[in-house]
Amino acid sequence: MSRFELDARLERDSELITVLGLCQLRLLKDSRWPWLMLVPQRPSMTEIFELTPLDQALLTFETNMVGAALKQVTGCTKVNIGALGNIVRQLHIHVIARFEGDPAWPGPIWGFGQSVPYQDQKSRQDLIDKLVEAISS
Amino acid sequence: MSRFELDARLERDSELITVLGLCQLRLLKDSRWPWLMLVPQRPSMTEIFELTPLDQALLTFETNMVGAALKQVTGCTKVNIGALGNIVRQLHIHVIARFEGDPAWPGPIWGFGQSVPYQDQKSRQDLIDKLVEAISS
Repeated sequence: MSRFELDARLERDSELITVLGLCQLRLLKDSRWPWLMLVPQRPSMTEIFELTPLDQALLTFETNMVGAALKQVTGCTKVNIGALGNIVRQLHIHVIARFEGDPAWPGPIWGFGQSVPYQDQKSRQDLIDKLVEAISS
Repeated sequence: MSRFELDARLERDSELITVLGLCQLRLLKDSRWPWLMLVPQRPSMTEIFELTPLDQALLTFETNMVGAALKQVTGCTKVNIGALGNIVRQLHIHVIARFEGDPAWPGPIWGFGQSVPYQDQKSRQDLIDKLVEAISS
């Protein structure tokens, strides 16, 4: 039985915020959008429907909790949720705050331009703190 | 209390395959990819987390059932699942069969090029029939 190990590219492109019941909640290193990622800590998964029914329910719960928190904290126009995995096959779910008029609006953000690392560490930490608070309440 | 009515653009861009417990299952009028859409038949919904917990569970069940059927029927490389809604706000979930080397691979398909209507009605009907069979079994 294999053990869960985070994909090297997902690890490089994001940082851990917290661990939920099933998933790692991570923040992408891209300041263009508040961009979160959920990674179920289960080995060898590439599609959501490969998870057990219980894990599917947990993933839904965690995704929707994180989506609602992101909407609340950012006041975004629309939350975008996506499970693509065309490049990195390890199952991961994107949860992104989108704003009318943001650089890629209304198109998708995946593959759009180059990521812009956070320069303002205070605003990055502030986002993380508010998300953790919203999720915990 | 308002009644569910399908958004006019979603209706124009897709056709009904079948109605599941919660959602309309629809086929996009774009032959570039086997591209399905689930539309929960609930009024005034824009985000998944606005659905009741039971509807969230139903949506998860239906999305994963449809995703598994699409994978089985098409033998695709990867299923892409997305809830964006930046253009059409009525809640809808995309389930798309992606193939290595398809026109947009490995990028997302939303906003990519122009849709190509099905010319071959037999292959379109064949896809629909196989999907319905896979979902029913």
